[in-house]
Amino acid sequence: MRKIIIGVIGPGESATAADLKYAYELGQRIARQGWVLLTGGRKSGVMDAASQGAKVAGGLTIGILPRDNTRGISEAVDIAIITDMGNARNNINVLSCDLVIACGMATGTASEVALALKSGKKVVLLTQNQATQIFFKSLSPDNILVTNSLETTIEFTKEVVNRPIPR
Amino acid sequence: MRKIIIGVIGPGESATAADLKYAYELGQRIARQGWVLLTGGRKSGVMDAASQGAKVAGGLTIGILPRDNTRGISEAVDIAIITDMGNARNNINVLSCDLVIACGMATGTASEVALALKSGKKVVLLTQNQATQIFFKSLSPDNILVTNSLETTIEFTKEVVNRPIPR
Amino acid sequence: MRKIIIGVIGPGESATAADLKYAYELGQRIARQGWVLLTGGRKSGVMDAASQGAKVAGGLTIGILPRDNTRGISEAVDIAIITDMGNARNNINVLSCDLVIACGMATGTASEVALALKSGKKVVLLTQNQATQIFFKSLSPDNILVTNSLETTIEFTKEVVNRPIPR
Amino acid sequence: MRKIIIGVIGPGESATAADLKYAYELGQRIARQGWVLLTGGRKSGVMDAASQGAKVAGGLTIGILPRDNTRGISEAVDIAIITDMGNARNNINVLSCDLVIACGMATGTASEVALALKSGKKVVLLTQNQATQIFFKSLSPDNILVTNSLETTIEFTKEVVNRPIPR
Repeated sequence: MRKIIIGVIGPGESATAADLKYAYELGQRIARQGWVLLTGGRKSGVMDAASQGAKVAGGLTIGILPRDNTRGISEAVDIAIITDMGNARNNINVLSCDLVIACGMATGTASEVALALKSGKKVVLLTQNQATQIFFKSLSPDNILVTNSLETTIEFTKEVVNRPIPR
Repeated sequence: MRKIIIGVIGPGESATAADLKYAYELGQRIARQGWVLLTGGRKSGVMDAASQGAKVAGGLTIGILPRDNTRGISEAVDIAIITDMGNARNNINVLSCDLVIACGMATGTASEVALALKSGKKVVLLTQNQATQIFFKSLSPDNILVTNSLETTIEFTKEVVNRPIPR
Repeated sequence: MRKIIIGVIGPGESATAADLKYAYELGQRIARQGWVLLTGGRKSGVMDAASQGAKVAGGLTIGILPRDNTRGISEAVDIAIITDMGNARNNINVLSCDLVIACGMATGTASEVALALKSGKKVVLLTQNQATQIFFKSLSPDNILVTNSLETTIEFTKEVVNRPIPR
Repeated sequence: MRKIIIGVIGPGESATAADLKYAYELGQRIARQGWVLLTGGRKSGVMDAASQGAKVAGGLTIGILPRDNTRGISEAVDIAIITDMGNARNNINVLSCDLVIACGMATGTASEVALALKSGKKVVLLTQNQATQIFFKSLSPDNILVTNSLETTIEFTKEVVNRPIPR
């Protein structure tokens, strides 16, 4: 039976301390639900923090890497998918997830939220500023949850992944 | 000598009448400068309108198509690049241009603006609403021109493409 | 610690009964070594047979799917990576593996063997005809093992993955 | 009206003097027919030689580049499409052409011939050794022309591009 995959996206080098704290806890909570965590796989920022959290909680972690070398892969990634396609891999990140959670914001993250909405995925905007909320809600009002709560994030994710939609 | 390529991005089916009018005029003005026009290539919205404008003015047009079939290619596209990689082709669109002009906004367009900024390209936000302006300026303040004027757009593009940067 | 990933590639719809038998056994043997199996993920031919074999033996299976819909995914795939990039995903298949085993031959398989050799990966040509052996050996003599034996295949794979190369 | 695009593929650094001579003449002949030349775009081997030939004859040249930097682009490329997706761009090369001509052979070239055949394109194997001919004919007997003659290559290409197939 196919595993449920939850994506956590967010800044690399420019992640804030708050982004990292949320990402780490998110990773833990996702793993505790038995879901697989998917990130951009690099040893940096939200990708690394979420993967570390998931591993501490005994989860399975996938990283979709932008380059074909293996430098800079998070040590908390179990399964490294090497795309060698730079930021075009962002589309694979969001297509492979049942739901996407954005924790922090940067240009790469913005492209992933936009691509997720384009493909009809549900997106959680976690602790985002007002400009981000307003912009993405204007593009796709029905597929976004805005929240500052990890608990609400997980409850919403449960609802989405438990829907009897043919996968 | 390599040709200068200017990208025009914007909504397909959801383009407004104003988006189409601006895109058509942009295509004309780009062609008149001797620049090559690059779009997403589909027979729809801003892609089609900009390409039509460029052809009327005697320009050369490239379309970077998402799919491998040839249905739905704008008849005003001279050179069809068939990627068969869906929205991941958005990254190719922006990487291949010397500058990107966003005319109208939708999820696909948002992903392209974000990817363009991520790769360090200059982006013109043409006649965009305030939410769009504020959001992208917060991500990358130095690489964005906000304007409602086609003339300003072309003047700014001239400056960018004439800079003696090693290409 | 990153998991070792072994790729099994081969025909979909045009697979022979022998291809399927070898692929199924390969999947079993890969799983028994504790390695992760990676295939093209479709519910067809060598991809499906190898994945079924791995699951019977308690292994973990990854499928790198060509399209963004979820029809046609092998039921024996645990982790479905949705690329929506058609056959361009063949490059991801080979880059993500520590070693590639070709079981049967078709145009897609040939592209994957060639891309694997291009990226410097070791390739096992399992039960291939002479034309295939001669052609690929002429392109890359040092990175190919030709064999008809599953046991030799697994022994060679052990040597490759146990080499102290920085990953 | 969409332009006819002919792809010339072959080795980069490992091209022989004969490969380069054929590629240069091919580029000239393609340009003289009014067709656009498409190559992998790098300043190396068959890609560069074919593009140089096409430019000398007044043609238009497209290069589909593997990386996002612009170092190493053939100076004879008019339109540089920057994919930043490494060898996965080989699929774009073949999908964007009306016909593919392989001039010389290497691992990358082999992947392109295989991907072209997979997508149903006609392929000319120009001055290829017997191992190459036998291998690819065994995969796809109906879509391959084997020849040592540039004149036969161009005549065959004319037939293919003049067929009243809906594009």
